[in-house]
Amino acid sequence: MKILDCTIRDGGYYTNWDFDQDIVKTYLESFNQLPVEYLEVGYRSQPMGEYLGEYFYCPVETLQRLKSISQKKLVIILNEKDVRAADAESLLSPITGLVTMVRMAIDPKNFKRALSLAAEVKRLGFEVAFNVMYMSTWADEKEFLELIPKVDEVADYFYMVDSFGGVYPQDVKDTIALVRSKTKVKLGFHGHNNLEMALANTLTAIHEGIDIVDATVTGMGRGAGNLKTELLLTVLNAKGLLDFPYNELSKTVDDFTKLQKHYEWGTNLPYMVSGANSLPQKQVMEWVSKRYYSFNSIIRALNNQSQGKVDNTKLPELDFGKEKTYAGALIVGGGPSATSHTQSIDRFLINNPNIIVIHASSKNALSFENVPNDQYFCLVGNEGHRLEEVFQGSNIKGKCILPPYPREMGTYIPKSLTDNAFELESVEFTDLYRDSHTALALQSILALKIEKVFITGYDGYSGNHIGEKEQELFLENQHLFSKIKDHFNIQLVSLTPTKYTELKGDSVYSKI
Amino acid sequence: MKILDCTIRDGGYYTNWDFDQDIVKTYLESFNQLPVEYLEVGYRSQPMGEYLGEYFYCPVETLQRLKSISQKKLVIILNEKDVRAADAESLLSPITGLVTMVRMAIDPKNFKRALSLAAEVKRLGFEVAFNVMYMSTWADEKEFLELIPKVDEVADYFYMVDSFGGVYPQDVKDTIALVRSKTKVKLGFHGHNNLEMALANTLTAIHEGIDIVDATVTGMGRGAGNLKTELLLTVLNAKGLLDFPYNELSKTVDDFTKLQKHYEWGTNLPYMVSGANSLPQKQVMEWVSKRYYSFNSIIRALNNQSQGKVDNTKLPELDFGKEKTYAGALIVGGGPSATSHTQSIDRFLINNPNIIVIHASSKNALSFENVPNDQYFCLVGNEGHRLEEVFQGSNIKGKCILPPYPREMGTYIPKSLTDNAFELESVEFTDLYRDSHTALALQSILALKIEKVFITGYDGYSGNHIGEKEQELFLENQHLFSKIKDHFNIQLVSLTPTKYTELKGDSVYSKI
Repeated sequence: MKILDCTIRDGGYYTNWDFDQDIVKTYLESFNQLPVEYLEVGYRSQPMGEYLGEYFYCPVETLQRLKSISQKKLVIILNEKDVRAADAESLLSPITGLVTMVRMAIDPKNFKRALSLAAEVKRLGFEVAFNVMYMSTWADEKEFLELIPKVDEVADYFYMVDSFGGVYPQDVKDTIALVRSKTKVKLGFHGHNNLEMALANTLTAIHEGIDIVDATVTGMGRGAGNLKTELLLTVLNAKGLLDFPYNELSKTVDDFTKLQKHYEWGTNLPYMVSGANSLPQKQVMEWVSKRYYSFNSIIRALNNQSQGKVDNTKLPELDFGKEKTYAGALIVGGGPSATSHTQSIDRFLINNPNIIVIHASSKNALSFENVPNDQYFCLVGNEGHRLEEVFQGSNIKGKCILPPYPREMGTYIPKSLTDNAFELESVEFTDLYRDSHTALALQSILALKIEKVFITGYDGYSGNHIGEKEQELFLENQHLFSKIKDHFNIQLVSLTPTKYTELKGDSVYSKI
Repeated sequence: MKILDCTIRDGGYYTNWDFDQDIVKTYLESFNQLPVEYLEVGYRSQPMGEYLGEYFYCPVETLQRLKSISQKKLVIILNEKDVRAADAESLLSPITGLVTMVRMAIDPKNFKRALSLAAEVKRLGFEVAFNVMYMSTWADEKEFLELIPKVDEVADYFYMVDSFGGVYPQDVKDTIALVRSKTKVKLGFHGHNNLEMALANTLTAIHEGIDIVDATVTGMGRGAGNLKTELLLTVLNAKGLLDFPYNELSKTVDDFTKLQKHYEWGTNLPYMVSGANSLPQKQVMEWVSKRYYSFNSIIRALNNQSQGKVDNTKLPELDFGKEKTYAGALIVGGGPSATSHTQSIDRFLINNPNIIVIHASSKNALSFENVPNDQYFCLVGNEGHRLEEVFQGSNIKGKCILPPYPREMGTYIPKSLTDNAFELESVEFTDLYRDSHTALALQSILALKIEKVFITGYDGYSGNHIGEKEQELFLENQHLFSKIKDHFNIQLVSLTPTKYTELKGDSVYSKI
């Protein structure tokens, strides 16, 4: 039984495939002393038109550097969906002699196409491994099952991948039996750790005589991560099956333990739910990294998905045609300028009662309690709870606008607004960041056919310690503002200081 | 099958059994909505003569407060080794009506004695559970095995505890069969997560028809921790075996996830090694929290223990009788005063060439390179490597002193000192902190029969941000200094500024 460590490749999901050179060096040197046969160090890929790091493209120079340190067989993986057989030569012939094995991540639905790619990779002289995803669904994939015998001609290893991290030892046994009934190719297992079953499943696979298993240092890998290499080695060592210098192992484990504290891979409640219910963890990762969805909403959405359930009701669409026509709108963001200039903004609104106030954030809502203008609150995800916290039990005057139905994260509307809750028909002006509060506020402007738009509370960030999340949010908002400006000829005028270059600067004090 | 959550009791190992009241309140309220029958909230204990928190003693008022919030059956546990049958009434009768079940943590070697305690607990009206430790060793415990049938009279549950966190599903099956062959009492399982096998083992136990299983929120518990309650519930939910509101679960999971980032329970390489090789994790916890043992040393020591191996050689004992007699000693700590006053200290040493320099820390060693005095380096754990780093390859002039043989953490001596390495016969002047550098330095003083001792580099800590570790180290050193002062009538004179009140203040400038 062989072991393949794919820390750099699978861990790249957290670092965008960039790793500090020292960490990689220590990793390679440690593994020179460990009973692991293959090291998968990244993807090879066509240009993707966005920034992806060193180990997503694995340029020849990078592989040469790795090869000069490592005595192990190096492996790269291809995303089958992005690579055609015709591209194989240009992608792989430059790395002949540097890389021993090429793996392919394959959706069973594309298995036929994968067979042609594999034939081409084999012709170029590489060992070939099929990493076939979604093992828990294979029993239903008739066409795929019929094609499995064809792998004998083109593959050295056929991997079962527990993509959802939801299989149990009995499933591993059953799937091994299923595949063995169709092919004599060597078998592999790649487990995920959503349910902390990666070791139990891998030991089962080993017990069933599997030929190769995957692991990563500290389990670093997409979502909940993988079987931990140090755990597998320790257990096999204690069973007397292999021996190695613990000092070498612990050097690289130390490095990745430190990285883990920053990136925090590993399982948690949402990953457990997605694993236990076979839901794609890619979506879970996206949701978890979003600021405006609570853990609760994510769990509920996952549960709903697994049960094919929609737990929210359709709200009336705000029929703006029947509403009164507004002379303009003031969109209020969460920045401090909306409250630090509150007196003059209130004066401006009192002077212009036909301007509607749209709160993109609940944060500053209280500052506008005493103006006569109509007010709307944009409620994405958990924002209804935040709005209630801001008003601390007192009645909220206004209406709320929610994203279009169905809202996969569910619907929460503060009690005092239940009769004044509306949803947008759609968010169309942008392809990106559609579920952000700013997108909701701007789409409302379009629906209301308002052309005069004032802004406050969109300050941007200053100082020497702008966080990654702030920077991301800033770029999101810039993008949304530019869409409105460029395609709808609406000027967005900031009444308070702002660093958003897509907003036109002006001063509330010039308007009162 | 019932579930018992013991987060507060077992998690207390990390918090010294103190928990924020809000966290406990949320925990109890969440569990009111969850399909968990019992909540174990702490120990009851005789006064232990040291500070242990609220949930180690569980005073009546505390239990009343919990009971007023919780609708679940409350449980406390007794350490059988600390409680005699005669004490049961005074300990337990005050909590009748508040607590439903009393568990007892039992070493199988004390099983007979435990039976009498259990009878007494039962008489007081409580449900009784036996938590019998070290399940992986039971097959060899003849006397215990013969006594098992007696539990039928006194116990409601008989728990198998995977104390080392090293059992596998087959072991669970075998042990259940073993116990079932001896008693009809209801069975329980308490798993640990060193090898991430807690869920796999617990599911096996459930499959074998076990009656009750333990879990803790986020796995919080001694050492590597336990089966995670949220994982068990999620898996049983996905299997359609139970249902519950995820929102309630995630509230308390959120709290403990935050705590985990501070205390960092969970498995890691040393816990894996201790689990896989059935070594007590109490010792691992102590080693891991020590500053002066490297991860490498711990792994090596654990491996040695598991193989019954001593990997270091006996060094010659420094026969001080044959050495020249010194007029005095200067002990050098790691604080900055030793280098900031380096010129005057050097002058003092040059003026007094018969004073020996003993380096308790390698940190300031370089400042003393050019004095003619004899120098000794105290090397505990990883310190030999640090000393080499300080000298960066250049020869180290002097001798080194190591702790008494056998050193369970192994022996590392810098190459240039191999012929000048000695060990102490024993460290006797203190019961506490024997393996610290300061203890080694002070024991050397005693062995050398030196009565005039100067100190530098023991500054203490100042400012508003003294860390917990610094505080701990400060108290350790104070304790060691006081032992020397009080029992050996040796004055310890600090030549540089110090906050250690056990040192006599003086100035190097008055002596040159």
